[in-house]
Amino acid sequence: NLQADLQALNFSIHQADDPPLFTPVPKPTMVPCHWKHADIMENLDRIGRDIKLEHGSVRRTLRLGNPGLEYGTTPTIWASIQFINPGEVATAHRHTASALRFIMHGKGANTIVDGEQYQMNEGDLVFTPNGAWHDHEHLGDEPMIWLDVLDISLVRSLEAVFYEGSDAPRQPVLNNPQASFSEYGSGIMRPTYPSRLERPNPLLAYPKARMEDAIHNAAMLEPDPHDDTILEFSNPLTGGPANPTIGTFFQRLRPGISLKPHRHTGSSVYHVVRGNGQTVVDDDVFEWAQGDFFSVPPWAKHAHANRSDSDDCLLFQVNDFPVMKTLGLWREETDV
Amino acid sequence: NLQADLQALNFSIHQADDPPLFTPVPKPTMVPCHWKHADIMENLDRIGRDIKLEHGSVRRTLRLGNPGLEYGTTPTIWASIQFINPGEVATAHRHTASALRFIMHGKGANTIVDGEQYQMNEGDLVFTPNGAWHDHEHLGDEPMIWLDVLDISLVRSLEAVFYEGSDAPRQPVLNNPQASFSEYGSGIMRPTYPSRLERPNPLLAYPKARMEDAIHNAAMLEPDPHDDTILEFSNPLTGGPANPTIGTFFQRLRPGISLKPHRHTGSSVYHVVRGNGQTVVDDDVFEWAQGDFFSVPPWAKHAHANRSDSDDCLLFQVNDFPVMKTLGLWREETDV
Amino acid sequence: NLQADLQALNFSIHQADDPPLFTPVPKPTMVPCHWKHADIMENLDRIGRDIKLEHGSVRRTLRLGNPGLEYGTTPTIWASIQFINPGEVATAHRHTASALRFIMHGKGANTIVDGEQYQMNEGDLVFTPNGAWHDHEHLGDEPMIWLDVLDISLVRSLEAVFYEGSDAPRQPVLNNPQASFSEYGSGIMRPTYPSRLERPNPLLAYPKARMEDAIHNAAMLEPDPHDDTILEFSNPLTGGPANPTIGTFFQRLRPGISLKPHRHTGSSVYHVVRGNGQTVVDDDVFEWAQGDFFSVPPWAKHAHANRSDSDDCLLFQVNDFPVMKTLGLWREETDV
Amino acid sequence: NLQADLQALNFSIHQADDPPLFTPVPKPTMVPCHWKHADIMENLDRIGRDIKLEHGSVRRTLRLGNPGLEYGTTPTIWASIQFINPGEVATAHRHTASALRFIMHGKGANTIVDGEQYQMNEGDLVFTPNGAWHDHEHLGDEPMIWLDVLDISLVRSLEAVFYEGSDAPRQPVLNNPQASFSEYGSGIMRPTYPSRLERPNPLLAYPKARMEDAIHNAAMLEPDPHDDTILEFSNPLTGGPANPTIGTFFQRLRPGISLKPHRHTGSSVYHVVRGNGQTVVDDDVFEWAQGDFFSVPPWAKHAHANRSDSDDCLLFQVNDFPVMKTLGLWREETDV
Ligand SMILES: [Fe+2]
Ligand SMILES: [Fe+2]
Ligand SMILES: [Fe+2]
Ligand SMILES: [Fe+2]
Ligand SMILES: [Fe+2]
Ligand SMILES: [Fe+2]
Ligand SMILES: [Fe+2]
Ligand SMILES: [Fe+2]
Repeated sequence: NLQADLQALNFSIHQADDPPLFTPVPKPTMVPCHWKHADIMENLDRIGRDIKLEHGSVRRTLRLGNPGLEYGTTPTIWASIQFINPGEVATAHRHTASALRFIMHGKGANTIVDGEQYQMNEGDLVFTPNGAWHDHEHLGDEPMIWLDVLDISLVRSLEAVFYEGSDAPRQPVLNNPQASFSEYGSGIMRPTYPSRLERPNPLLAYPKARMEDAIHNAAMLEPDPHDDTILEFSNPLTGGPANPTIGTFFQRLRPGISLKPHRHTGSSVYHVVRGNGQTVVDDDVFEWAQGDFFSVPPWAKHAHANRSDSDDCLLFQVNDFPVMKTLGLWREETDV
Repeated sequence: NLQADLQALNFSIHQADDPPLFTPVPKPTMVPCHWKHADIMENLDRIGRDIKLEHGSVRRTLRLGNPGLEYGTTPTIWASIQFINPGEVATAHRHTASALRFIMHGKGANTIVDGEQYQMNEGDLVFTPNGAWHDHEHLGDEPMIWLDVLDISLVRSLEAVFYEGSDAPRQPVLNNPQASFSEYGSGIMRPTYPSRLERPNPLLAYPKARMEDAIHNAAMLEPDPHDDTILEFSNPLTGGPANPTIGTFFQRLRPGISLKPHRHTGSSVYHVVRGNGQTVVDDDVFEWAQGDFFSVPPWAKHAHANRSDSDDCLLFQVNDFPVMKTLGLWREETDV
Repeated sequence: NLQADLQALNFSIHQADDPPLFTPVPKPTMVPCHWKHADIMENLDRIGRDIKLEHGSVRRTLRLGNPGLEYGTTPTIWASIQFINPGEVATAHRHTASALRFIMHGKGANTIVDGEQYQMNEGDLVFTPNGAWHDHEHLGDEPMIWLDVLDISLVRSLEAVFYEGSDAPRQPVLNNPQASFSEYGSGIMRPTYPSRLERPNPLLAYPKARMEDAIHNAAMLEPDPHDDTILEFSNPLTGGPANPTIGTFFQRLRPGISLKPHRHTGSSVYHVVRGNGQTVVDDDVFEWAQGDFFSVPPWAKHAHANRSDSDDCLLFQVNDFPVMKTLGLWREETDV
Repeated sequence: NLQADLQALNFSIHQADDPPLFTPVPKPTMVPCHWKHADIMENLDRIGRDIKLEHGSVRRTLRLGNPGLEYGTTPTIWASIQFINPGEVATAHRHTASALRFIMHGKGANTIVDGEQYQMNEGDLVFTPNGAWHDHEHLGDEPMIWLDVLDISLVRSLEAVFYEGSDAPRQPVLNNPQASFSEYGSGIMRPTYPSRLERPNPLLAYPKARMEDAIHNAAMLEPDPHDDTILEFSNPLTGGPANPTIGTFFQRLRPGISLKPHRHTGSSVYHVVRGNGQTVVDDDVFEWAQGDFFSVPPWAKHAHANRSDSDDCLLFQVNDFPVMKTLGLWREETDV
């Protein structure tokens, strides 16, 4: 038997009934998904009751999955929603997967990343880059909720997962606890010496106020036919993406706008920061509101609309576009 | 039931019996493999007898697989060995997967890549970059054998597979059929105008004679404790890798040398161009000879040795190191 | 006669009494200079009385010169102080020399640069890059004074001076009159499309408020032993200098600080924005106060001090350091 | 007296009779020059008789000057022709000015640059980069003649001249005396580790044979209307110019070709390696032959022609185009 003989030697040949290796366009198994705010809150609450937290090592975390994927929110990204009670600590550790935290609700937590300490309040975005030690503690009085995003699916498919824990629950803090923000936080003035940090982007924290200013100014720009007003968090040292493997976008949809559909490579997860709208993703129609999430698979046709005639919609988006662009795999179809 | 409820909403939570998402170091499912020259030749012959070639669309191609992977030679790369009879034509097509061809045996084929036409004879290396139209025809008198490598597993895991065929079996050839080689082939002199090509590396063909010269000169260098003399095919426009996603190395092991083991992220496939040697990969010991192939999984400890006291070994290696380095996922342990 | 014969054929040979072509360290003819605020104001007033302004083509401009140079403030840079009456217009023109304007006093002028329109008020910094059309008009009620800086001496020594005037006094303004500020002004969020502008730095205007914020945050940094707290205006697209040929620094000296001397290649012009201090430049001691200017020649040893025990000094510096660094000619001696 | 008062305070104002600071296009004082082979040889011989060489510190060197410049061959470059007798040594030294040597005649000299040792024979090009220690010795039997080029005029105008001599006449040679050539000489294969050298271009020597190959292959290219076939010596690590401040071109003019005139910023010195031709530079017509030199000022209109109907002309050109391009001052007019 040819097949068996070949297999015994770790050979194979193309068979007529093999799934096609090459397709004219991407045919991902990931499907579009929509998570509603009420479902998120209810299930966060439910798992909170079921889970006994011990040693800070188990977390009240709701992962956003996909029926077409064995694991992960998209082929590259895992997003989850985390509920944090006052006093909770996440002990120091590091990993090759890049991560970020976008604060959905509450205030008073602080994180230490590579020895720098930043507050995390509603609307803030904090990165924990590949290889950076990180820990956090919730010092506030009320529970917080945030979005955790990791490119762990990407790092797993490339078989480069490293993880290291620390004996100390929290890292010692540098003399200047916000050194790199002092150096690069303005984005338009910088030290006269070269960056002293190994990480590609020195800047760890992007505060809400700075993001709101930027979006406000960007409203003057020619609107994008597919995305209205959209900005990418960037690396002040290079002008490139804030993280080399996870794209982070913030987007404003004007009242009443219905945007044109497009499709492109790369996968996305959207979080509705404010407003009510609709996104059509291939054959699915998602009617979303504040606090919702939805995901868009690679090469899926998608079009957004703001359903209100009076209020803006604000969307925070994470994606793997930097990977696609760096590897030369970005493709876009604007007229679909 | 919590699990079912969560699953219905595309949520999940961490379960005690989940396979661990994070591991201290990579734990790939890929295992080391070894393919012997005689097995390759016998099975190429065997499938040649079984397969009816029609319209050039089916090929006598032996894929190198891995028992730990659903498909592919490594988590990112597919290598296969192709047997080409005189007169055979591969019709023009293009795809987002990057590819290369290393000629193992024979002469007389020519390929057209983006309108440029190059001979393919034993020892030559030819790239068909992401998005480049390519076709070839074997105009010689004797069968040829070459190695085909694609990063299709990478492109599939990123869901960016595009494929397009052409109605014409072969592309029209440019007025200057080796334009980019005329411009960039010397590597140390170049046109005074910026590159007119969209592809990251203008240079498509790396002829055997140039490679042999380079390896000869590199023998003067301080030997690498893990790799003896090793060079990477490079992009004369940037000094970076010849292809953005597939690393291509050529390596010489001095007579009698036993190299130190090391381990690193990224996966490799080696082809023995000349000589007899041994490579230990974790718990496997591969005794290899000319015409063999073997593969090294991510983070596997490996050490090479030349088993001859009089003759060099020459190894051609393909890997995904450019991806690992570009994405910040390269890690190496030199003392293992 | 050998000399005459050689000269007739455009040959020459080294003569014993030639000035030395090579010196162990730079021996510039430029000398340190100091201009006092009162002298500037008095002479601005004096030339204002003498000069009949016609068609906006002659300007009340006091050039800062150097007794060791045929022209220019330093070997590369011309700085001048300009007095502008309400209603004055500078008609549209462009040149290869890069320029900038730092507003020393007053408010109400606006400039159009490449079709973008920006206000110019005290403390603002506006660039008119190489090749950019620019004009301005003073729409305010009171006279203004600003600092004009050009790298015209550099461009002259490289024989690349181009100048073009326009028939129209002022340029038409773009629909979005601050387009590039809307895109890149935040420095940490940017459009998702590549820059659409040819100029190396899209950002033309650096408002006072943003600069003050940055300096305030930088005060947390480890002080520089030679410069205390110092930041460079940067290009948000590249992380490099705001202008490719003119460096622009803003510096704060703590009350009472006496900094260590150093020397380096490149030449500088300093403007005292606030405070009282002293700078020793080789054998010169400059006691400066608000509104003063002083210049530091290449490789001159210099050390700054704040003479007040209670108030900060703020210095705005222009220099040619980007040229020195780009061309590999930056050298520094920190222990002098 | 206003002028005197201003001058006393290092102020100046624009005067009606000042030479214009800005001109519509460059108006260099440099004029086109032509040096004939016979004049070079005669005067090399003549100064050889007059000059007593002592301690290797004085050299038989004929500088190419310009009647419009106080010193230098162009505003940035000094070229000179050097006659070297067997046994002569140039003792080790280094300087910030970049230099190169193009061997016009003879063989047998060797140079040590940063510890690497290279032969210098007719047609070879060797760089001594900014800051690199260099020395040489003529070990052959017959006199040699070579072209020396330095960007000393550029470095002087930027006031960054540093010079350091060594007590030892010659440097010790590295274990691998051609280490960087072993690493980067092929231009299309390179070490797998990052460059270990501080200098921007690791490659010091460009042998004649490699250059001839490159020019031969480039003859297939679409001819340039102004330069026929022209290549630039490049940095294999970056694809940029071989030296960051001195451009080095090699050019072939087909038999009988009369090229179109153009003009551009930057200044050039040409050496006729082979053939007979004509170059019109503004109002000058230079009829040149093998061994001649001629210079082209910035923005001068120039057009080359090969005067032979049967033989190629080969021209070696040095220029400051990399400086002009790096600083954004490159301008070209192709239709003049
Ligand atoms: Fe983590
Ligand atoms: Fe989209
Ligand atoms: Fe293909
Ligand atoms: Fe290895
Ligand atoms: Fe101007
Ligand atoms: Fe300084
Ligand atoms: Fe020298
Ligand atoms: Fe030219």
